[in-house]
Amino acid sequence: MRALYYDGQLQYREAYSRPVRGPGEALIQVKWAGICNTDKEIIKGYKGYRGVLGHEFVGVVVEADDPVWIGRRVVADINVGCGICRLCKKGKAHHCWKRRCLGIFGMDGAFADYLSMPVENLFVVPDRVSDREAVFAEPLAAALEIVEQIHVRPSQRVAVLGDGKLGQLVALVLSLTGCRLTVIGKHPDRLQLLQGRAETKCLSEVDVEAEEWAASFDLVVDCSGQPSGLLLASALTEPGGVLLMKSTFQGDNTVCATDWVVRELTLTGSRCGPMDAALRLLERRLVDVLPLISSVYSLPDGVKAVFDQQAGKVLLDMGL
Amino acid sequence: MRALYYDGQLQYREAYSRPVRGPGEALIQVKWAGICNTDKEIIKGYKGYRGVLGHEFVGVVVEADDPVWIGRRVVADINVGCGICRLCKKGKAHHCWKRRCLGIFGMDGAFADYLSMPVENLFVVPDRVSDREAVFAEPLAAALEIVEQIHVRPSQRVAVLGDGKLGQLVALVLSLTGCRLTVIGKHPDRLQLLQGRAETKCLSEVDVEAEEWAASFDLVVDCSGQPSGLLLASALTEPGGVLLMKSTFQGDNTVCATDWVVRELTLTGSRCGPMDAALRLLERRLVDVLPLISSVYSLPDGVKAVFDQQAGKVLLDMGL
Repeated sequence: MRALYYDGQLQYREAYSRPVRGPGEALIQVKWAGICNTDKEIIKGYKGYRGVLGHEFVGVVVEADDPVWIGRRVVADINVGCGICRLCKKGKAHHCWKRRCLGIFGMDGAFADYLSMPVENLFVVPDRVSDREAVFAEPLAAALEIVEQIHVRPSQRVAVLGDGKLGQLVALVLSLTGCRLTVIGKHPDRLQLLQGRAETKCLSEVDVEAEEWAASFDLVVDCSGQPSGLLLASALTEPGGVLLMKSTFQGDNTVCATDWVVRELTLTGSRCGPMDAALRLLERRLVDVLPLISSVYSLPDGVKAVFDQQAGKVLLDMGL
Repeated sequence: MRALYYDGQLQYREAYSRPVRGPGEALIQVKWAGICNTDKEIIKGYKGYRGVLGHEFVGVVVEADDPVWIGRRVVADINVGCGICRLCKKGKAHHCWKRRCLGIFGMDGAFADYLSMPVENLFVVPDRVSDREAVFAEPLAAALEIVEQIHVRPSQRVAVLGDGKLGQLVALVLSLTGCRLTVIGKHPDRLQLLQGRAETKCLSEVDVEAEEWAASFDLVVDCSGQPSGLLLASALTEPGGVLLMKSTFQGDNTVCATDWVVRELTLTGSRCGPMDAALRLLERRLVDVLPLISSVYSLPDGVKAVFDQQAGKVLLDMGL
């Protein structure tokens, strides 16, 4: 099969071996896949992963133990726990030490014609949700993880840092709570997409020393993808408030933990979220993801697609 | 009056001017005061404070607008908000930007014969609580702030890092929840004090790589007072768990925020807490603080007292 493979260098392969379906798994033919910043971080060395990239997809089941699955259009929770350790037994399979993660570690990913995934990780896509929408289910679930983890009140003042792919989805999800929402970004054209859902500001307009900004948000979500985002988010968070950390990147941060103690901030790390809720938001037409697509490539052009510098979502169309 | 004054150098003064009672304030004659690590950090430059040190005390009201206060034995919430700003109006006077804080900023402290404090910050000490117990109300309230901020479940596995003054109080408070409690310290004699209330371990016995320890606590409270404590606490916290930060010190930390994101840790800073609840725990004899006292000095020996290197609580007896 065709695949985008990374082994220190990203390469398109015409004849990569098709995955072997393990016990309890379904073989899925990929229809569409999405490129995430994590893919770009992997290419910078994050996680030391070697294999087929890609963890955002929609596909069709072509093989499974139970024939009811055949032909079903599916998305998947990308974390596959061992099922037997302490964390898996506590319902924390997402955090299992021995977990595999589609296209991120221990498991070939979705930038290929086929992938194999445990049936229990699959979610059937409602008819009303198109393929190009369904491919957003995984990052949309990651945005929903915020409201899974913490209670966002309609009366709260909330800031989202970053107008990239994840920042946009986070803003769309948080706008649903009714909260007072400000998105701070660097790209006027990307911020423009959020019109009607959030107040938007260019970073250059934000003076963290000014009373309007300094420590004035109950909740700040850092989707900047940069170490500096944590410091800006910290400066914007009100004493006793919450700083939600969504950014992952290579390397360490220099912070002043004493300042967090004195201001009694809460910092919460946030990763993957509920796929079923993401599909419900798409089915209910509460989140319009299509304007977030900036370009579409075919799989043979995948290397170019991964290095595409556009701020929006880049999709791979497998031509199925 | 007599006072321990800091202006870059700690000094005992015989004839420091008695504080002038402001509107709504009571003049309090100090009976006992306690020395906290924050006092030692101030002497290292923390907060750039200049004035009379000390924020843990018990005293007697000698002047107040309402005569009902005269002769009352009191402790105090040490944070004095401006009363009119956004944070004060939201009930967050502890975090008011313009707040004064007894012996920490903007306000002479308790290592003196007299101090002046708004009546609304005062709490009457129940008869059953002795002076030497009451002087622990402020740090005990800081320990209680943890259970004010987060829900500690009886079934949870909890670790406290540090067997110093604050670590001991935190351990005593957390033991009341019924949780599975391990205190990790460096001083066998201090850990010994917690016998019957917590499992104790010397830091040298803790192998954070071993399955028994690595990421195995639902909640870890860092009372180590050192930057390294944050890293150890992080390593011990289970994915999805809470790291409670109690340590304040000069300087920055180097951390890996991406690790917190991937493991979905929550870090919560924690400072001052509910004084009334602290007095209730003392009155109910649920927390025995007297064994924590390592020595008592008179005020003229105060400089020696502040530099006393003992791990336990050092008190100042004003001789009243």
